[in-house]
Amino acid sequence: MEQQALEFELTKEFRDRFQQALDDHDDVFIQNILHEVKAADITTLLYEFTIEESKYFMDLLPVEVQSEIIRDLEPDTRKRYLKLYKPNDISVLLNNLLSDDIADILHELPVKEREEVLLDLEPVLRGQVTELLRYEAYVAGGLMAKELIRARVNWTVVQCVEEIRKQAENVSKFYQVYVVDETDKLLGRLSLQDLIISDARKLVGDIYEKDIVSVETYMEDREVAEIMKKYELVSVPVVNVHGYLVGRITIDDIVDVITEQAEEDRQMMAGISENVEEDDSIWRNTRARLPWLLIGIFGGLMNAKFMGLFEAELARVTAIAFFTPLIQATGGNVGIQSSSLIVQSLANPNFVDEGLWKRLVKVFFVAILNGLFLSILVLGANILLFQEYSLSFVVSIALFSVVLFASFIGTITPLILNRFGFNPALAAGPFITTTNDLLGLTLYFFTVHLIL
Amino acid sequence: MEQQALEFELTKEFRDRFQQALDDHDDVFIQNILHEVKAADITTLLYEFTIEESKYFMDLLPVEVQSEIIRDLEPDTRKRYLKLYKPNDISVLLNNLLSDDIADILHELPVKEREEVLLDLEPVLRGQVTELLRYEAYVAGGLMAKELIRARVNWTVVQCVEEIRKQAENVSKFYQVYVVDETDKLLGRLSLQDLIISDARKLVGDIYEKDIVSVETYMEDREVAEIMKKYELVSVPVVNVHGYLVGRITIDDIVDVITEQAEEDRQMMAGISENVEEDDSIWRNTRARLPWLLIGIFGGLMNAKFMGLFEAELARVTAIAFFTPLIQATGGNVGIQSSSLIVQSLANPNFVDEGLWKRLVKVFFVAILNGLFLSILVLGANILLFQEYSLSFVVSIALFSVVLFASFIGTITPLILNRFGFNPALAAGPFITTTNDLLGLTLYFFTVHLIL
Repeated sequence: MEQQALEFELTKEFRDRFQQALDDHDDVFIQNILHEVKAADITTLLYEFTIEESKYFMDLLPVEVQSEIIRDLEPDTRKRYLKLYKPNDISVLLNNLLSDDIADILHELPVKEREEVLLDLEPVLRGQVTELLRYEAYVAGGLMAKELIRARVNWTVVQCVEEIRKQAENVSKFYQVYVVDETDKLLGRLSLQDLIISDARKLVGDIYEKDIVSVETYMEDREVAEIMKKYELVSVPVVNVHGYLVGRITIDDIVDVITEQAEEDRQMMAGISENVEEDDSIWRNTRARLPWLLIGIFGGLMNAKFMGLFEAELARVTAIAFFTPLIQATGGNVGIQSSSLIVQSLANPNFVDEGLWKRLVKVFFVAILNGLFLSILVLGANILLFQEYSLSFVVSIALFSVVLFASFIGTITPLILNRFGFNPALAAGPFITTTNDLLGLTLYFFTVHLIL
Repeated sequence: MEQQALEFELTKEFRDRFQQALDDHDDVFIQNILHEVKAADITTLLYEFTIEESKYFMDLLPVEVQSEIIRDLEPDTRKRYLKLYKPNDISVLLNNLLSDDIADILHELPVKEREEVLLDLEPVLRGQVTELLRYEAYVAGGLMAKELIRARVNWTVVQCVEEIRKQAENVSKFYQVYVVDETDKLLGRLSLQDLIISDARKLVGDIYEKDIVSVETYMEDREVAEIMKKYELVSVPVVNVHGYLVGRITIDDIVDVITEQAEEDRQMMAGISENVEEDDSIWRNTRARLPWLLIGIFGGLMNAKFMGLFEAELARVTAIAFFTPLIQATGGNVGIQSSSLIVQSLANPNFVDEGLWKRLVKVFFVAILNGLFLSILVLGANILLFQEYSLSFVVSIALFSVVLFASFIGTITPLILNRFGFNPALAAGPFITTTNDLLGLTLYFFTVHLIL
């Protein structure tokens, strides 16, 4: 029974069989097989077939299921897919969705089409969506939905339940009733659970929870996510600057924000500059990678120019060149480790800036321990492998200094980026590696020059 | 009013003033100031003061608030902090929490103490927690709470509401009632919202939702997270292998799973081997970093040994050495970019293995475009900067090959790791960088050897 939903797995066999049904226009087969599958699973099918084929089997589904699928599609696929629809067909699909999802989809459409779709929406919904379209996607106003249940503080429980019956038609999922005064100012909330277990004659004013957490329309999505995580909320009311209730944000939107955030950080660490996915076009994939590769190339050319200054030393002892990869790789690794730990601390909502000084002292000791261990190890290995005593000493001294400096730069860069409002994850990527490559080389050749 | 909660920010001024109150044992000040602050905000204070100081102000708080704070602490801090308590004091605090949180905390205690605390819990809770302790922390059984509201399919709505009143005392937050048959087998769910808006004389059997998604006790947390995300659930029922309802998992636990997952991936990419945080001890920080640094060092020594084979060439044209950083950095960057895109695809719940071949062809084209662009650019730059024509050609040819090979290895490694059940993010870290360093060097010197 409930297993059905979980057991659906998109296999090659299923896809081939389904393709055949599409080719044969075998509507009965398609309808029967899709009837057993949840909308969220049908959504995955749209990534597998051409948009024309997708449209063909979508048209065989009930319109509410179509709406749900449209809502769950990735923006890029949805954009391509909706090109097959006329504006008033899109309106029909959107009429089944919540205002926040509609606003997100409308943002993706060309302006002219957006206006036409908007005109064909149901009047109440049109008003709500128009209001939401004003907000940027990354603030609370852009995340919130207008659909919510509000109760006046002077109602009785019975009145409240009556009103919920009326309002609930337009609100699909809700867990809380928001309590407002006559002017719509947010006062608190009442969980459905408290409503159910309360005496019917009580007043809302006697049983609602005051002092609740709310967010303001202009608050950034990251902040909203942190607040909902911290206070373990499934939904949070959104108020405007005057404290009037204007919407609510539910946890599923926040789960998306958290997931996207993690993805963005990972891309920054990997040196990919746009929001790109593997299945995007070859050109877009190329373009997203180039900027960071260019920084690396620029760093590499600077490295080459710098080594050129020591051509005399290199000509005298060729073996000097053997150890640049060792020095640079270690510098890179230490730098990335340091900065990613700072990035992690900054991402922690309980993060308190405990003072740069205390932090640096600790980083310094960790670096000394790691540096000592590694340079002694390398000293032993080099003497065994290359029998070059003085060069081996030079390499170990340079290695120790590189560990120290790379820790310092890796620690300080994300803090500085964060201070100036950039994503600190930027510092855990190719940026720090390139800097550390140059740093490592400089320290190494400086030591060579001094000692050898 | 509701702004209070949000406006609390742990400033240095607040901390200093609070420290002074602690030193002066100014209980009135402490109680007054903490009365205005939410539990989740007081929690942050425990990271700021010694555990003895924390215990001092915690003792001034109502016991429910203390319980909530204990629940929200990071495991390491909690472990240290709870050492100040006797087992039966811990039981008093835990009695206010949900079974899943209690089980998590008990897992952290030494076995003897765990048994003592367990004995002092309220009987019903003791039974529930004992059952939960059987499960590993990373499976559904270890995430779930025992507290849930169950309704029999043959009840009327009125009966159901009555029962909810009785059961709700033990269940803090719930959004759904789970519908079971006489043997406790899960049949479906009934949202509170449907319960409120339904006619009181209707049967649960007529209004509940069948075909719901459930998870089994042994399912891994990652999978549970994917399912809850995919179907946008705020809570999911957990059944045992026979389909009997044994618990429920709520979205806040899943938000934690997603956050930890992202952190783990980030640490893998940064080459940090244990679950370490910046504020852990110096020794632990050092130890967590060493393994990957050692791999880097090993790679570096191999690089050195390898370059030694070409000592003659290097002695003849010293400038060959200038370009090893450029080649290696580019190889590393390209490799990390490729693997992180694959890691991202694998993390996507809609990921379908579209065939290795198709994927590789695309990666190949992206690599050719990037490789061509970069090597032409570098050719121009090198000729301008160094006036060494044949060496410049060698560098560009090697660079082009490195981009191609590094893309290939970066793509294939996470797929292989994933196939054999390892975290593919492993491949986006120092592992791939070290491999690519060696690869780059080999390709470069091979080209040098052939052409120069």
